[in-house]
Amino acid sequence: MTISPLAPAKFPDLPEIAGVTFASAAAGVRYAGRTDVMMACLTEGTAIAGVFTRSATRSANVLDCQAKLGSDPSGRAAIIVNSGNSNAFTGKHGDESVAAICAAVGATLSLDPSRVFTASTGVIGEQLPHDRITAKIAELAANQSAASIENAARAIMTTDTFPKGATATINVGGKPVKIAGIAKGSGMIAPDMATMLVYIFTDAKISQADLQEIISSENDKTFNCITVDSDTSTSDSLVAAATGASGVDVTGNSDFVDAMHAVMLDLALQVVRDGEGATKFVTVDVTGAADARDARKVAMAIANSPLVKTAIAGEDANWGRVVMAVGKSGAAAERDLLSIRFGDILVAENGWRAPDYSEEATSAYMKNQELAIAVDLGLGAGASTVWTCDLTHGYIDINADYRS
Amino acid sequence: MTISPLAPAKFPDLPEIAGVTFASAAAGVRYAGRTDVMMACLTEGTAIAGVFTRSATRSANVLDCQAKLGSDPSGRAAIIVNSGNSNAFTGKHGDESVAAICAAVGATLSLDPSRVFTASTGVIGEQLPHDRITAKIAELAANQSAASIENAARAIMTTDTFPKGATATINVGGKPVKIAGIAKGSGMIAPDMATMLVYIFTDAKISQADLQEIISSENDKTFNCITVDSDTSTSDSLVAAATGASGVDVTGNSDFVDAMHAVMLDLALQVVRDGEGATKFVTVDVTGAADARDARKVAMAIANSPLVKTAIAGEDANWGRVVMAVGKSGAAAERDLLSIRFGDILVAENGWRAPDYSEEATSAYMKNQELAIAVDLGLGAGASTVWTCDLTHGYIDINADYRS
Repeated sequence: MTISPLAPAKFPDLPEIAGVTFASAAAGVRYAGRTDVMMACLTEGTAIAGVFTRSATRSANVLDCQAKLGSDPSGRAAIIVNSGNSNAFTGKHGDESVAAICAAVGATLSLDPSRVFTASTGVIGEQLPHDRITAKIAELAANQSAASIENAARAIMTTDTFPKGATATINVGGKPVKIAGIAKGSGMIAPDMATMLVYIFTDAKISQADLQEIISSENDKTFNCITVDSDTSTSDSLVAAATGASGVDVTGNSDFVDAMHAVMLDLALQVVRDGEGATKFVTVDVTGAADARDARKVAMAIANSPLVKTAIAGEDANWGRVVMAVGKSGAAAERDLLSIRFGDILVAENGWRAPDYSEEATSAYMKNQELAIAVDLGLGAGASTVWTCDLTHGYIDINADYRS
Repeated sequence: MTISPLAPAKFPDLPEIAGVTFASAAAGVRYAGRTDVMMACLTEGTAIAGVFTRSATRSANVLDCQAKLGSDPSGRAAIIVNSGNSNAFTGKHGDESVAAICAAVGATLSLDPSRVFTASTGVIGEQLPHDRITAKIAELAANQSAASIENAARAIMTTDTFPKGATATINVGGKPVKIAGIAKGSGMIAPDMATMLVYIFTDAKISQADLQEIISSENDKTFNCITVDSDTSTSDSLVAAATGASGVDVTGNSDFVDAMHAVMLDLALQVVRDGEGATKFVTVDVTGAADARDARKVAMAIANSPLVKTAIAGEDANWGRVVMAVGKSGAAAERDLLSIRFGDILVAENGWRAPDYSEEATSAYMKNQELAIAVDLGLGAGASTVWTCDLTHGYIDINADYRS
């Protein structure tokens, strides 16, 4: 598979996080000749928090994780994730697969199965051959290494064209606290209060409740602000694990919140950069809306409009389609107060094309790989930023026959 | 342009409607070598009703029509429509263009400009060269003929690949009442309480208020139940004109309502059949929802999902994506109560693939040009039917460079 033209130059150097080790293996769940399972082992007392898809048809794994979260940390923990099969809409079999994997991990690592967090990603509605995964747990346990996070990021890829990682380090009273995260996702991307598969590790010391509050709140400003195709996955999961191994308590530390935000945003934007078939990275900024809700409606209407997204793919400065998307969004808007910019170019204001509009200059701008569309509604203080990509032949190629 | 593979074999034989005549002309608004303006003249006392887009950025023509409707018929009337330019988001210029056209038609036909109803369809945000249209009004007035409705249907086409017409006749006490309608539309199709451009003519006698009530109500069951790309036009207009020339009063006549429904549904489905790039016609039937609103949410989530639509294009029996769309719709749903059928084939029930599911049989079914996806939520009595098409490379081709 060709790597997305929007991919970062390389996978970042992620620091080792004290208290976390990783391993990956080729279990042959669906794909041949590549790793497709990763397991992370977490030290005693690690606080684990998560946010998940709100889909009414969410996977057995998501339901299991949701049931397990919320209690304070006790004992060691593990995260195990497979690609190739989402274990979603697999009925009772799905629940049995999750239970079998958690039991096997618990037995091998001598920890409580209620401290095993699973995720599966891939095709929906096919029974997960979980015996292929459980057969690899001893190998995964034996090969654990603090340095293997990049391989873990690779093992959870599906239609992704590059592995996604991000990191941040803060200093608290002269002591470093490290954060490292990985993510997968490229299609079925329109999170609704949730995300793709994202795993974030930190050696900070923090309670489960405080960690949960931070990721829930920052999720709304990061993963919930991206969209590739307006479709929402049945498996979206973000899990954050704080091992406490740095010995540094970050309760109430705003630098830690900012660092978590930075890592989450970095990973979220990498997901957009790997949007199926994407050739353009687009930032949609909406200001001047009646309220934040309306601003988000307008931003998402633009970012999800097939007509806007195909125009961008065609490098067509078709700002009329942005007007259309504003109009259909359901948000309050007044034609004559609206202004639209493509990059620094004012293309429309006062209910019509801007007086100095130059089709030539705007068309030249559209050739950029990174584009910014800004809409000011001129009504109030509501603002929202959303990130998306274009809609190309590549998206059709990938999805007209994904299963085979 | 290749004609859609889903097109009807031929344009239907539309009857002449007493009290209505048509003409079309090549005004060169944008397209060369084809007609692009049609004018219909309506006899004294014709009742005119309409439904329009709820877009917040609707066109100057839509705003003008909405202001003119509602009063009881008096005097003759005219409808004039151009293709090639939508006159939407053209600021004050747009209002001036509408006023100039209405004044010119009024002067030429000696009727009140408040009885002239305009529409424009095509590119958004470019000033309408209305002088090219007013220059043709004398020609349009001179060439009026009751038989020219098919040419009128052709003059209003944009990315349409075939003209759309439908008809019905009812008998009231031995006397025929005729209905004939035309429509245009193929992209930017996700009406919100409105439609594309649709013109329906009848010789029935009926008050403006009663006609308005019928089209508003039937619109919800026809044009509001189709979607091509989830985008909503700034120009959507449905105008119905009842000349009364048959002398037959249809007030309270349910046969007339049924006949209007049939004509509106026929035209709506032709719009789907001409969906940009469409190769498959898809009926989505949702039953068993908690209420009708939820049923519609689920049906539209399926019909608008890029992943469902690309799977259909690829003839992939990917019912897992239907599960995903149900899950993301926001409607109440329970995994284990859901059942899904592709045509007559039960593909999923009890939270998983149906026991007798055959990938071979379902893949064979997907090769049909007309497909039916049925979802029963098992919760209540809410039901909804929505019609759509697949998402193909053709859609990208048409829209990545529509303006040039």
